[in-house]
Amino acid sequence: MLHFYYAPRCCALASHIVLEEAGATYTTTRLDFTKQQQRSPEYLAINPKARVPALVTPQGVLTETPAMLVYIAQTHPQAKLMPSMDEAWAFAQMQSFNAYLCATVHVAEAHWQRGNRWVDPDDAHAIAALKKRVPTSVFDAFELIERNLTGEWVMGDTYTISDAYLFTLAQWMEFYGVDVSGLPRVIAHRGRVGARPATLRAIAEETGVAAA
Amino acid sequence: MLHFYYAPRCCALASHIVLEEAGATYTTTRLDFTKQQQRSPEYLAINPKARVPALVTPQGVLTETPAMLVYIAQTHPQAKLMPSMDEAWAFAQMQSFNAYLCATVHVAEAHWQRGNRWVDPDDAHAIAALKKRVPTSVFDAFELIERNLTGEWVMGDTYTISDAYLFTLAQWMEFYGVDVSGLPRVIAHRGRVGARPATLRAIAEETGVAAA
Repeated sequence: MLHFYYAPRCCALASHIVLEEAGATYTTTRLDFTKQQQRSPEYLAINPKARVPALVTPQGVLTETPAMLVYIAQTHPQAKLMPSMDEAWAFAQMQSFNAYLCATVHVAEAHWQRGNRWVDPDDAHAIAALKKRVPTSVFDAFELIERNLTGEWVMGDTYTISDAYLFTLAQWMEFYGVDVSGLPRVIAHRGRVGARPATLRAIAEETGVAAA
Repeated sequence: MLHFYYAPRCCALASHIVLEEAGATYTTTRLDFTKQQQRSPEYLAINPKARVPALVTPQGVLTETPAMLVYIAQTHPQAKLMPSMDEAWAFAQMQSFNAYLCATVHVAEAHWQRGNRWVDPDDAHAIAALKKRVPTSVFDAFELIERNLTGEWVMGDTYTISDAYLFTLAQWMEFYGVDVSGLPRVIAHRGRVGARPATLRAIAEETGVAAA
C-alpha cells in the first residue's frame, strides 16, 4: 500500500495522475499550504524538505517527482507507463525530458510565487524583478519542448509518465502571463492529457469535486 | 563510441568523472564559455539548450546530467556504478538524490553567476540580491545532505554515480562564501571522491594538466 502526500495546484499532480494511470492502490493526505501544514513537525518527520509530493512506500518515503514517477511506473509494469528500462536510449531520453521539466521548466515557474527561495523575501524590488521575468523564461523553456513535440505524446506514439509531468507544468502558463499562441503543440498536448480519465480523477480528488 | 562536450569548472564534470569510472571509450570537446562557444551555430545544432554537458551517442545526443549519469552507468554495467534497475526502491532513492542535486542544489548555486536566467541582467539590484542569498540557500541545501550522509558513500557502502555528482556540486561552496564548518561529512565525502583516480583523470583533462 502506498500513501501519497500532496497539495492542490502544484507539481504533485504529476505523480497523482501517474498513480491513477498505474491503477495503484493508495491513500492520500492533502496538505494546506495556506496553513503551512508542510512545515508541521508531523510532516517534517515524513519529508524534511517541507515540500510535496511525498510517497510513503513499504520501504520508506520517496520524494522528488522524477524519481517518484519512474518508481510508480516501474512497480506497476502492467500499465506500461515508460519505455522498458532495458532500452537504455529510450529510457535515457525520457529521463532527460523529465530532468529538464524538473530543473528548468519548473524552476522558471517557481520564480513567480517562490522567489523567497532565492532572494530576501522582504526585498520587494528583487521579488518583483523575479516575477517580471517569468513570462519570458517560462515561454522560452516551453518553446524548446514545442519544437520537439512532433508526435501525439512526448515519447512519440506511446503515453508515458513524461506526458503527465508536462501537462502538470503546462497548466499555469496563462496565469503567469505566458503568450501561449506560440506554443500550439504544447497546448494541444495539454488538452489530450487533460481529457484522460486518470487525469480527471486525480484533479477531481485534489479539488474536492466528485469524479464523474 | 561516445563524444562528450563539456566546459571546465561546471556541472559537466560529474558526467566526465562517471565516463572515467565506467572505463568508457570516448572523445571530448572542451567549450570555452568566455568565448560563448556554447552559442555557436555548430554547438546549437548539437544541443539547442546552449549548455553542457552533451553526450553524443550512436543513437543521438543526450543532455541533462541525471539522465546522462544513469545512461553511462547502465551501458557500462561491469563498472557497477548504480544499484540494479531491478531493485526499484534502491534505484528510486538514487534517482531522488540526483533530482535534488539537479533541481535544488545546482539551482541554488546557479543564482550566483547565472542570475540573468531569472532576472533582467541589467537590473543590478536584483542580480546582487540573488547573489547575496546564495551562501544561505546553498548551505541549507547541503545541510539536508549532511544529515543523511552517514555512510562512506551517498548510497551507503557502495560508490555510485551520485557520489560523482555530489562531489562536483560541492566543489564551489567556499567560493560562494558558504560556511562549510557545519558540513563536515560533505567535506570529508568531497575528499574521498576527489582522491579517486577517475576523478583526478577527469579534472586533469578539463584543466589541461597531464594526468599522473
